[in-house]
Amino acid sequence: MLKEACKVEHPGDEEIKILLAQEREKLAANQMKIKEANLPVMVMFEGWGASGKGSIIGKVIQNIDPRFFDVATMDAEPSEEEKRKPFLWRYFKEIPKAGKFKLMDTCWMEEVTDGILEGNLDEETYRKRINSINTAERSLTDNGYLVMKFFLHISKKEQKKRLEKLEENESTAWRVNPDDKWENKHYDKCLDVYEKYIEDTNRPSAPWYIIDAKDRKFAELSVLQLLNLGIDTALKNNSLAVPILQNSFPMRKTIKLGDISLDDKKISDEEYKVKLKVLQTRLRELHNEIYNAKIPVIIAYEGWDAAGKGGNIKRITQALDPRGYIVHPIASPEPAEKARHYLWRFWNRLPKTGHIAIFDRTWYGRVMVERLEGFCSENDWQRAYNEMNEFEKELTDWGAVVIKFWVQIDNKTQLERFTDRQNTPEKQWKITDEDWRNREKWDLYEQAINEMIAKTNTTFAPWYVLESVDKKYARIKALEIVIEELEKALKEKKSK
Amino acid sequence: MLKEACKVEHPGDEEIKILLAQEREKLAANQMKIKEANLPVMVMFEGWGASGKGSIIGKVIQNIDPRFFDVATMDAEPSEEEKRKPFLWRYFKEIPKAGKFKLMDTCWMEEVTDGILEGNLDEETYRKRINSINTAERSLTDNGYLVMKFFLHISKKEQKKRLEKLEENESTAWRVNPDDKWENKHYDKCLDVYEKYIEDTNRPSAPWYIIDAKDRKFAELSVLQLLNLGIDTALKNNSLAVPILQNSFPMRKTIKLGDISLDDKKISDEEYKVKLKVLQTRLRELHNEIYNAKIPVIIAYEGWDAAGKGGNIKRITQALDPRGYIVHPIASPEPAEKARHYLWRFWNRLPKTGHIAIFDRTWYGRVMVERLEGFCSENDWQRAYNEMNEFEKELTDWGAVVIKFWVQIDNKTQLERFTDRQNTPEKQWKITDEDWRNREKWDLYEQAINEMIAKTNTTFAPWYVLESVDKKYARIKALEIVIEELEKALKEKKSK
Repeated sequence: MLKEACKVEHPGDEEIKILLAQEREKLAANQMKIKEANLPVMVMFEGWGASGKGSIIGKVIQNIDPRFFDVATMDAEPSEEEKRKPFLWRYFKEIPKAGKFKLMDTCWMEEVTDGILEGNLDEETYRKRINSINTAERSLTDNGYLVMKFFLHISKKEQKKRLEKLEENESTAWRVNPDDKWENKHYDKCLDVYEKYIEDTNRPSAPWYIIDAKDRKFAELSVLQLLNLGIDTALKNNSLAVPILQNSFPMRKTIKLGDISLDDKKISDEEYKVKLKVLQTRLRELHNEIYNAKIPVIIAYEGWDAAGKGGNIKRITQALDPRGYIVHPIASPEPAEKARHYLWRFWNRLPKTGHIAIFDRTWYGRVMVERLEGFCSENDWQRAYNEMNEFEKELTDWGAVVIKFWVQIDNKTQLERFTDRQNTPEKQWKITDEDWRNREKWDLYEQAINEMIAKTNTTFAPWYVLESVDKKYARIKALEIVIEELEKALKEKKSK
Repeated sequence: MLKEACKVEHPGDEEIKILLAQEREKLAANQMKIKEANLPVMVMFEGWGASGKGSIIGKVIQNIDPRFFDVATMDAEPSEEEKRKPFLWRYFKEIPKAGKFKLMDTCWMEEVTDGILEGNLDEETYRKRINSINTAERSLTDNGYLVMKFFLHISKKEQKKRLEKLEENESTAWRVNPDDKWENKHYDKCLDVYEKYIEDTNRPSAPWYIIDAKDRKFAELSVLQLLNLGIDTALKNNSLAVPILQNSFPMRKTIKLGDISLDDKKISDEEYKVKLKVLQTRLRELHNEIYNAKIPVIIAYEGWDAAGKGGNIKRITQALDPRGYIVHPIASPEPAEKARHYLWRFWNRLPKTGHIAIFDRTWYGRVMVERLEGFCSENDWQRAYNEMNEFEKELTDWGAVVIKFWVQIDNKTQLERFTDRQNTPEKQWKITDEDWRNREKWDLYEQAINEMIAKTNTTFAPWYVLESVDKKYARIKALEIVIEELEKALKEKKSK
């Protein structure tokens, strides 16, 4: 593709000038349309060293009001902190808000192709990265993003000429980095790696556009034309339904809420005290081991209102070193979160390696409250099961332990607790009209939760039910499961 | 994917029964919705021998009115006639009409995987086939088709059991074909080939669905559920705008109609007679050679009304053996053609190897009359340049010579010819009100034609302008170009 794409005849200089003026004007107009349509536009610029990525970005943004775009300049190499997050993390953080542009001065391509060229990315990891990237790009476009990928192409000769020219002049010599010179020396090898990457990630929904970057004016024109064309097309689809992919992850046995017996799940105060102490002591030790082994841990809590999530989480965190964990209470999304891919706020809250993140409510809101309250379309929540499995697979592939708890009570118990909250002044803050409204939809929720568990109870990120009519029972069970999962992860890590 | 996809827990028999009844009813309802929405649905069934493809198809169609579906049973091996057409041809012929189902009992997958397993498809041809298939599936979905791909999966053990059971009974033994036994014996090798094919062709717009086909009822349920889900999703998009891909084919120098001088392109009657005879004699010889070398030839004529296409074509065909060529006059599409992908009627009219097909007007109607009269959406015609280049690339990769003529006259000459036709009783049939209406849009057409030539003047299927103010000049030029192209193709073929 790289080798073929640039054999296009250029218009003459005069014509380029006229066309450029047209496209610039059009982009300015499109910026307003994007805002109105709430379309998020993510534009990735990749290409050869000295191909002019920065200068093209500079020209593109001259046509856009600064309130409506952001430029992210990514280093080829992640920082020390970024290395403690999943590969996609530092890029996914950058996705634009609805109605805005994000221009990426290199994105996930460069890190991968550099990895290959430097020989520190084996074939298996390469395949994994390609899969992560295709999945992420698809998930963005499925969720209404316009993703445009430009590769700025120049010949070996042209690159050499540019590098020499930069070096000649003292004031520009610093801009030539050793990697660019290496790239020029090994041009053909690099070309093959870039070509393969482009082929491996060229998908109809987020296709590659190769830009002949030899003539800077023509390159600018090509980028603007394609950008405007891409925006025009995206604006025609106001609410797109995309095919629901097969949710083909290995699954554990389904759990139906109706089949869970609750009243027999009890523990005496005496036994609770003893066990709690033993288990918390063990968890404290494990937290250290996890920290040393650099294993990231994600514990996700979902459950009925008043099921006892808060108290349960507390019994976990009591055993943890505060420097190594964080609890994320998840309420309805902030405007900045609502304006992005629904998983963005969870990507942003991922722990570093060795740390524990506990989510009090989670991304599963998509298929519970968002589904039932109509906050997203049917296509959105139907797609979400697979998207969330993909998200958790990304996390476990990164090395994370992912534990998902469903805190279960019955309808009657919820009513008792609600009534108790209502009648006890110091508990009244815990109960709202919304809780009562949700309660009326119990059956619909139960149906949605059963579907959720059936479709996301993967072997790598399983659901555990915590029977919480007796809250003490649920706390002990949670501690036991967390301990078991951490021990398993440590053992696996050591055996490698 | 194959290996993972079937690890899903099955509902109990009773539940399957209830769910099946629901899905059957839903499919019956969906059939009516498909008809109303004019959605074409192409369903491909692939899978292991004895996995039950035929029986599943039989069950699916029980829910659909026979007026609304067709089943196509494809042989793994193309017939002798089919071998003289491009690889995609026998499948593309089968695409359904808008509003109808087509169920394919194996499609292009089987031919490719068999080719690999039998060792007569080398890596390069495999890559070419994968590319053709991905392009075709994308072009179908881009043009509003719902394409669903099911792979019926069973284990080696299960397949063996089924084959043995079929063989036991004399009345069913004939159904076991030697290929199925070979497949069972080399199960793991086949699994790898299928897995790779599925991975190579799993695209978000036409994704694979793997069906656990061990339990027949569950398999039927899975297919019906996914089919209904796919239809629901497709029905939500009434008119979809899809990203315009980069038209990254190698291009020849652009031609602008305004730059072509016409009045100097003349030939005397004397010279015309002599040259015509010589060239037609040569073309006659070449037609034989082409036939023997099995080279298919496609000559596409476009041009202004009254430019002289008919007479030009006649001078070509005068030199050809009538058993080896056909002229396809292309008018507005028949209802059966209009109801399908716009390239379908051209696929159907492709010549066999060794034959010549001449198109009097062509697929380029998409970006001329269909564009200007609003017969297709803007997204449709913008996408079409790339789609037509892909189509012609498919043809030249198959070995065809593709020659495209633009027969050019100026506005004044057209007026003279129109007036002459109007005033000459025996020519009046040649001129219609529509011709006059089109004439009023000359400038818009000229702009569209310039864009068309710029975007489709590929090195492998170039445009040639025939200056036809002097029709004799244009005829001689056409003959010379056809001869030159055929000589070139013969030389290339011999050098291989």
